Amino acid sequence: MKLAFADIETAARRIAPHAQVTPVLRSRSLDELAGCRIAFKCENFQRAGAFKFRGACNAVWALADADAAHGVVTHSSGNHGAALALAAKTRGIAAHVVVPEGAVAAKVAAIRAYGATLHVCAPTLVAREEAAARIARETGAVLVHPFTNEQVIAGQGTAALELLREAGELDALIAPIGGGGLIGGSAIAAKGVFPPIRILAAEPEGAADAFESMRRGVRVTDIVPDTICDGLRATFGEINFALLREYGVEVLPVSDAQTAAAMRLVFERLKIVIEPSSAVVLAAILRHRERFAGLRVGAILSGGNVDLDHLPW
Amino acid sequence: MKLAFADIETAARRIAPHAQVTPVLRSRSLDELAGCRIAFKCENFQRAGAFKFRGACNAVWALADADAAHGVVTHSSGNHGAALALAAKTRGIAAHVVVPEGAVAAKVAAIRAYGATLHVCAPTLVAREEAAARIARETGAVLVHPFTNEQVIAGQGTAALELLREAGELDALIAPIGGGGLIGGSAIAAKGVFPPIRILAAEPEGAADAFESMRRGVRVTDIVPDTICDGLRATFGEINFALLREYGVEVLPVSDAQTAAAMRLVFERLKIVIEPSSAVVLAAILRHRERFAGLRVGAILSGGNVDLDHLPW
Repeated sequence: MKLAFADIETAARRIAPHAQVTPVLRSRSLDELAGCRIAFKCENFQRAGAFKFRGACNAVWALADADAAHGVVTHSSGNHGAALALAAKTRGIAAHVVVPEGAVAAKVAAIRAYGATLHVCAPTLVAREEAAARIARETGAVLVHPFTNEQVIAGQGTAALELLREAGELDALIAPIGGGGLIGGSAIAAKGVFPPIRILAAEPEGAADAFESMRRGVRVTDIVPDTICDGLRATFGEINFALLREYGVEVLPVSDAQTAAAMRLVFERLKIVIEPSSAVVLAAILRHRERFAGLRVGAILSGGNVDLDHLPW
Repeated sequence: MKLAFADIETAARRIAPHAQVTPVLRSRSLDELAGCRIAFKCENFQRAGAFKFRGACNAVWALADADAAHGVVTHSSGNHGAALALAAKTRGIAAHVVVPEGAVAAKVAAIRAYGATLHVCAPTLVAREEAAARIARETGAVLVHPFTNEQVIAGQGTAALELLREAGELDALIAPIGGGGLIGGSAIAAKGVFPPIRILAAEPEGAADAFESMRRGVRVTDIVPDTICDGLRATFGEINFALLREYGVEVLPVSDAQTAAAMRLVFERLKIVIEPSSAVVLAAILRHRERFAGLRVGAILSGGNVDLDHLPW
C-alpha cells in the first residue's frame, strides 16, 4: 500500500460517526503579532483530547471483523494509548496498552477509564516492544503502532482535510512533528486538496531528529530527547521520513522557551487549553516569521492534555 | 421603558455585525460528574474576552447619531471598560474610561489598546462616579453604566438567546451574578424563548449581596466583597433586583475553593480558558447538584480574561 489522498478521504468517512469535527479558530491579535493570517485547527477539542483519536479510530475500524475480534494492542503511555483505548471501546473490542513502570498516574488512569487492559513493563523501548509483541502473539490482538501504521497516518490526515475544506485555500500548513504520523497524513491531505500549499513541521530543538535527518539526508535515530514537549519525544520512522521527503516538508526547530511563551499566548488570546507539543506550531511561526510573512497559514494545534499543576511559564 | 423579550431580539440584530456568535460546548465527563446534561455557552470566545461586549455594543449602537457623536463614558477597570472601548471603536466614536489608581496594568493596557481615553481617579466608588459624571458634563459623552443601563441588560441577554436557539429546550439556565446585568438579560431572553425554563444565578459567598437580598426581600448594599471572582464584586442595582424578583431567579452561593476547583475542571475537560467569575456556574451546579439532577442545563461561561500567572489552584 502506498498512501494516497483517497486513503485520507476513506478515513474521514470511516471515523465520521465517532470523531469530532473540531473548530477552526482565529485571533486578530495573534495575526498582528505573527504578521500572517492563521487558521488554528483545534484538535485539543478532539475526543480523548488530541488528534491521536483520528488515527486510532481509523485503524480500529479498518480491521476486518475476524481480526478485530481479537482486539488491539499498543505501547504508549501518552495520547495514543488513550486514543486507542477509546477507539476500541467505540467498536466494542478489547484494547491492550503496554505502559512503562513509572508512567504518569493521571495518564494511566485515563487509559484505564476508557476500558483498556494495562500491562506494566520495564521503562525501556525494547521492553515495551517485546511486551506488545508477546501480547499480540498470545491474544491475537493487532498491533497498532502510534505513527508507522498506515491507517493511523491516514486517520491523522483527516484533521488537515477538514481544515482545508473549511478555511479554503491556504499558502502554508504547519503541524508538530514527533513520530511523524500527523505531519505525514497532513501533507497527503493538504496537497490533495490544494497542491500549491507548502508543508512545514515544527520540532523542538531538544528532539530534532527530523530536522537533522532532513539536513543530512539520512534518518537520524540516536538523538536522546530533552524537551518539555512530551508528545514529540519519539524517533520518527522510515515511512514517516519517506513522506517528509516526498512532500518536501520543511522542518522548523524551536526552543522550549519559545514553546512555553507561545503556549501562554494561545491560552491568553485564543482562550483555549493546549499542551506544549501543540504550542510548537505557533512558536515556529513567530520564530521563523519571514517564512510566513503575509501568508494564509493553517496551523494544527494537536492536543490539550496538559498537566495544569505544572504549566511551563 | 420596561425591558421585554423584543428588546433582546432587537439587541441581537443590532450587535450581529460586530459580536461573535460564540460556540456551545458539551463534555461527557462533566455531565457524568454533575449528573445532568450541560450546554456551556462560551463567552470567553466573545470579542474582548467576555459577554460584556454584547451589552456595550448594544448600548453604543442604540444611540442616536447626535448623541453618539459626543462619545461614551464609563467607570470600570474590568471587562466592561474594555468592552465599551471596543464597542465605541466599532462605531468610530470616542470612549472615556475612568480607572482607579492602582488598577491592574494589563487591564488598563487592554482598554488603551482599544483606543479609549483613560481618566485616572482615586480608588473609591464615589470618586469614580464623580469623575464619570464630570466627563459626561464636560464632553457630552453618554454614560453607559455596566449593569443598570437597560440597553446593556438587553445586550447581555443575547448570549442566552443564542444558547436557547442552538441547544433547544432546556430545563434550567444558570449564569453568574455580579452587578446583575447578565442574569437579568438572560432571564428575559430564556423565558421569552421557553417559558417553563428555571433561572438560577451563581454567586460567590464572599459577595453574596444578591443571595442576601432575595432572602431578606430588600436590596442589601452594605456587603464588602471578598472573593477571587473579580468580575462579581459589584453591588447589584435596583433594576437588577427587580428583574431577579420578576423572573423568580434562585441564587446559589458557592465558595471560592469550589470555584477554583470548578475552573480547573473546565480547563481540564472542556479545554478552554475561563476566569473565576465564569467558573462559579459549574461550581454551583456541582455544589447544588440536587437542583439539577437529570436536567438539561444551559450554563453561561461569562469570560476568559484571567491572570495566567496566578491561577487559583
